Amino acid sequence: MKNIKVFAPASVANVGCGFDVLGFALENPGDELILRKKKSKGINIINRSSYNSISLDPEKNCAGKPLLSFLRRIHYSEGLEVTFTRKIKPRSGIGSSAASAAASVFAANELFGKPFSGKELVELGMIGESVASGSFHADNVAPSLLGGFLLIRSYTPLDVVKLSHPENLYCALAHPDIEIKTMDARKVLKKVVDFKKAITQWGNVAGLIAGLGSSDFSLIGRSMEDVIVEPVRAALIPHYFAVKKSAMKNGALGCAISGSGPTVFALCDGFDNAEKASRAMQQVFLKKNISCDRYVSKINPHGAIILN
Amino acid sequence: MKNIKVFAPASVANVGCGFDVLGFALENPGDELILRKKKSKGINIINRSSYNSISLDPEKNCAGKPLLSFLRRIHYSEGLEVTFTRKIKPRSGIGSSAASAAASVFAANELFGKPFSGKELVELGMIGESVASGSFHADNVAPSLLGGFLLIRSYTPLDVVKLSHPENLYCALAHPDIEIKTMDARKVLKKVVDFKKAITQWGNVAGLIAGLGSSDFSLIGRSMEDVIVEPVRAALIPHYFAVKKSAMKNGALGCAISGSGPTVFALCDGFDNAEKASRAMQQVFLKKNISCDRYVSKINPHGAIILN
Repeated sequence: MKNIKVFAPASVANVGCGFDVLGFALENPGDELILRKKKSKGINIINRSSYNSISLDPEKNCAGKPLLSFLRRIHYSEGLEVTFTRKIKPRSGIGSSAASAAASVFAANELFGKPFSGKELVELGMIGESVASGSFHADNVAPSLLGGFLLIRSYTPLDVVKLSHPENLYCALAHPDIEIKTMDARKVLKKVVDFKKAITQWGNVAGLIAGLGSSDFSLIGRSMEDVIVEPVRAALIPHYFAVKKSAMKNGALGCAISGSGPTVFALCDGFDNAEKASRAMQQVFLKKNISCDRYVSKINPHGAIILN
Repeated sequence: MKNIKVFAPASVANVGCGFDVLGFALENPGDELILRKKKSKGINIINRSSYNSISLDPEKNCAGKPLLSFLRRIHYSEGLEVTFTRKIKPRSGIGSSAASAAASVFAANELFGKPFSGKELVELGMIGESVASGSFHADNVAPSLLGGFLLIRSYTPLDVVKLSHPENLYCALAHPDIEIKTMDARKVLKKVVDFKKAITQWGNVAGLIAGLGSSDFSLIGRSMEDVIVEPVRAALIPHYFAVKKSAMKNGALGCAISGSGPTVFALCDGFDNAEKASRAMQQVFLKKNISCDRYVSKINPHGAIILN
């Protein structure tokens, strides 16, 4: 095989209370990527998407940087051509950089006869994620690669756990046309947290996992509450609490910031509720003259897939 | 009905990573309590156990104080005689005060035709718990009353969630003859925690709930790790890390301090492993000339029960 075309989906990280440890894959949107073996050394990157701000320098590109590591690890002396079509807007909060990183390492693994395990691919993908956020985290890369609703229990060593969840769980998303850099969103976080709030948070994390496992939609909803990160990050998204309120009135079980925002997401029982919630969230932004895309998606069980 | 005899079991709170939110009921030991209606006003308390340090003043007694609230709430103008036989040593870390409180409110509820729900009984029981610890918490009272492996997701409002767990999950316990007051154990805790450690902690809480739900014993074990409370409380229990190491080498999935200690517990896959682990923990204390009781128990699904 000399070339391969793959798709890696967007994802929602944190999921309310589960900052840095929870994430799930969406069905759509996602990034497409074509990888071609070439005789000359190095990695050439071609951008076929309309987002021109993305660096084509492999060292500064979310797809390029993990590929450099990949090739070094398999001692490959020739090069690769990477053509990507980003269908996720950069800095949306639904894992655009993670999807690029996931697509690139997944494609390379298929192209070179699967030298790495899924977990090793997550570790390689985190290298790409660090280009965008400045820190190594896996709560977008892992779902984008492996699919499903995932727990990143630990980073040292990396421990990724696939969580069971109700079949009928849907996600509603509203992506307002506001830009937040992940690095800025991390800067507003404090280095210490109130112990009592931390206890509330892990009570909610426990409730969310229990609710997902027992298909208890009410428990899922009331457990999503984030008492640590949302209170400081909400200020970065204009009208956030109005959007959340509107989602909660229109079929959402719970509503929170997707990753570092600005996308706001809601978990819902069934497609109809998710449609209603996503429309309601979009309307709040539109009424404030902020253009806003919306999506509805089930949890994507597949993650990255081959397209050709 | 004029009198009733009940049993309420000991319990393990925190369960490693789940400080203040997780707890489960043991089969043994437990407290027995007889409640008798009497014509005269007030609550008389009779102690039939060998632990003489327990106050017989209803306002200062774990069983008496919640009963005073109970009787006020049902507008009962006569009185009660409470005879208790404590079979759990006070300040053991396996919920002795919670078992007394649970036994008293459970018995009263049965005696007066069940005026209160299980959740309301937990709230009443917390009044008794506060006599011992100085704070209102439910991670011992709730399992002692309701049985099972429980999550106290929230206190405002109280939200108690029954968690599924593997049938073959056993608990090994070693109770060294050391006294730690819950109030002192709470004093060593800081009011703020490192954010990164809090993230590690809720990752572990998530892993523990997922492991319990999917009967993944390895996940249960590696998720029990507590990076916040154990490091400061371990110093209150001599030889704690040697005891833990010995348990881990002898069949334990994970090992931690039960409640505020000094009892150390381990979760194990099956009775044989729990027997091995409890003996191993006991041996470490005995070799250091600290006398030590040991117990092995399944998760008790019943909680408080009527005996006569």
